[in-house]
Amino acid sequence: MRGPYVAVIGAGRATGEQERAAERVGALLAEAGAVVVSGGLGGVMRASCRGAYERGGLTVGLLPGAERAEGNPFLTVALPTGMGELRNGLVARTADGLVAVGGGWGTLSEIGFAMRLGRPLVAVGSWAVTAPDGGPTYPVMDSPDDAVAWLLREIARLPAK
Amino acid sequence: MRGPYVAVIGAGRATGEQERAAERVGALLAEAGAVVVSGGLGGVMRASCRGAYERGGLTVGLLPGAERAEGNPFLTVALPTGMGELRNGLVARTADGLVAVGGGWGTLSEIGFAMRLGRPLVAVGSWAVTAPDGGPTYPVMDSPDDAVAWLLREIARLPAK
Amino acid sequence: MRGPYVAVIGAGRATGEQERAAERVGALLAEAGAVVVSGGLGGVMRASCRGAYERGGLTVGLLPGAERAEGNPFLTVALPTGMGELRNGLVARTADGLVAVGGGWGTLSEIGFAMRLGRPLVAVGSWAVTAPDGGPTYPVMDSPDDAVAWLLREIARLPAK
Amino acid sequence: MRGPYVAVIGAGRATGEQERAAERVGALLAEAGAVVVSGGLGGVMRASCRGAYERGGLTVGLLPGAERAEGNPFLTVALPTGMGELRNGLVARTADGLVAVGGGWGTLSEIGFAMRLGRPLVAVGSWAVTAPDGGPTYPVMDSPDDAVAWLLREIARLPAK
Repeated sequence: MRGPYVAVIGAGRATGEQERAAERVGALLAEAGAVVVSGGLGGVMRASCRGAYERGGLTVGLLPGAERAEGNPFLTVALPTGMGELRNGLVARTADGLVAVGGGWGTLSEIGFAMRLGRPLVAVGSWAVTAPDGGPTYPVMDSPDDAVAWLLREIARLPAK
Repeated sequence: MRGPYVAVIGAGRATGEQERAAERVGALLAEAGAVVVSGGLGGVMRASCRGAYERGGLTVGLLPGAERAEGNPFLTVALPTGMGELRNGLVARTADGLVAVGGGWGTLSEIGFAMRLGRPLVAVGSWAVTAPDGGPTYPVMDSPDDAVAWLLREIARLPAK
Repeated sequence: MRGPYVAVIGAGRATGEQERAAERVGALLAEAGAVVVSGGLGGVMRASCRGAYERGGLTVGLLPGAERAEGNPFLTVALPTGMGELRNGLVARTADGLVAVGGGWGTLSEIGFAMRLGRPLVAVGSWAVTAPDGGPTYPVMDSPDDAVAWLLREIARLPAK
Repeated sequence: MRGPYVAVIGAGRATGEQERAAERVGALLAEAGAVVVSGGLGGVMRASCRGAYERGGLTVGLLPGAERAEGNPFLTVALPTGMGELRNGLVARTADGLVAVGGGWGTLSEIGFAMRLGRPLVAVGSWAVTAPDGGPTYPVMDSPDDAVAWLLREIARLPAK
């Protein structure tokens, strides 16, 4: 029985610190038996795939373009969607939970989608947002270990589907 | 020659103040000859369509579901996409610029998409966001009139396409 | 009260005869008050839009690319989806019924989608198909007038939605 | 180095003969190191996944709905797209080549998409189609072994990407 599907979202251009955090997230997810889903490109996506792949984890990349070759080399499964940035919604849709590390506007779109769909999400050095009605958002944590531990607990509490 | 396509984004449940702002935005856009694009449902979407429709404006709704009847009654064109929340990306994609009024997580996903695509966007009492790198975001204005005026100027400055 | 949404599907490269048939279809649909939906490009799409547009009909183009300018000049509403050929499914999804005129493989994908969704569809000099189980397909007619008349009757018989 | 991505397309309701053919196709693809992509549901999809899975092959299901649980039990990776029948285009998009076994209208839409994208495709007891211009279509074969052998040769001849 395979574990949950967890998306690691973040920008294709990342700082060294963000990449280290993403790689650690990927490694922890692989150790927990999770399938790591991402947009499949560079930066945070590549680092999280690398962390998972090197521990024998299964990684899935939902690529924006039409060519499989644009995927990073740490993908078990590379799927060129040809949908451009619309594939961000697919990443959120297919995940049981998400970790955001750093990130640009595309990452923000994925955060919005995921929260809209009621997916558990935790941010590590990512976007901070304030809702128009001042309502609750998602937890922000410094430590990748804390973030993954929190997320896996939240996913485990979800009703089975 | 028709004017620009402007999306008005915001939640299906809105306060009276947000609906008044959205209706004013729609009215101003119609007077400027813009095509008003939205998710086609209630709340801010309905109010902006109403404002535009009553001034003879053209309104387009990209509905999440499979039934045209879910659209609000102020749509010139109602398109059921059957894509669920993924249609948020389509709203951003098809617009030359966007006004966000209030809004929930779906609105945040549209903001992320629009900014990722480089579309001019202005917020009226909507999400406030801080990027991981502290970079620039979008203007936030109190007045629908100021917001629409700013947006139409920005769109006019874009290279023709 | 606006009439039904009818998609005219066919290839971007068409023979003169196909374009004349498509233009006639568009004209008849506009006279019936229908909204004409298409992929928004050239050939059959352009001809059907022209026929409708010149009779004051409302035409909607769901463009495959990201630029509104790729749409033909007879579109009331031009929506760049950025979804590539995946937008073929949207064309079928948003229509209450379809007329296929000539067409290439993309047209065949739209035919498949439309029939899968249970939409009434009629072909004028288009693909002929035989199902694996030899089951019923769609009517093939020579005359655009007969085809439109048949389609509008079928749409009128559908349950309201 | 993983082999090509091959989609097996066909209906969720299939005859015993079609399921046997699909299972054989899946088995042969797994033995060739291919990743087997499908719509992830029952009938031909389930049978091809079963054939591949039982030989240690990697199987990917692009599900139409929003729930992972709707996937068949022989999927290595199950991705709920929430796109409904629009996911048919994704199946064709993500594959390097396709085998159609039997099938309904959804299968025909996938055939149209795949041919539009220039993917090699072979049919085993599936749709027979005649283009408006009488142009070439795809090969139809009785034997799953012949079909897979032909397809793998065609894929190998494609330019690398």
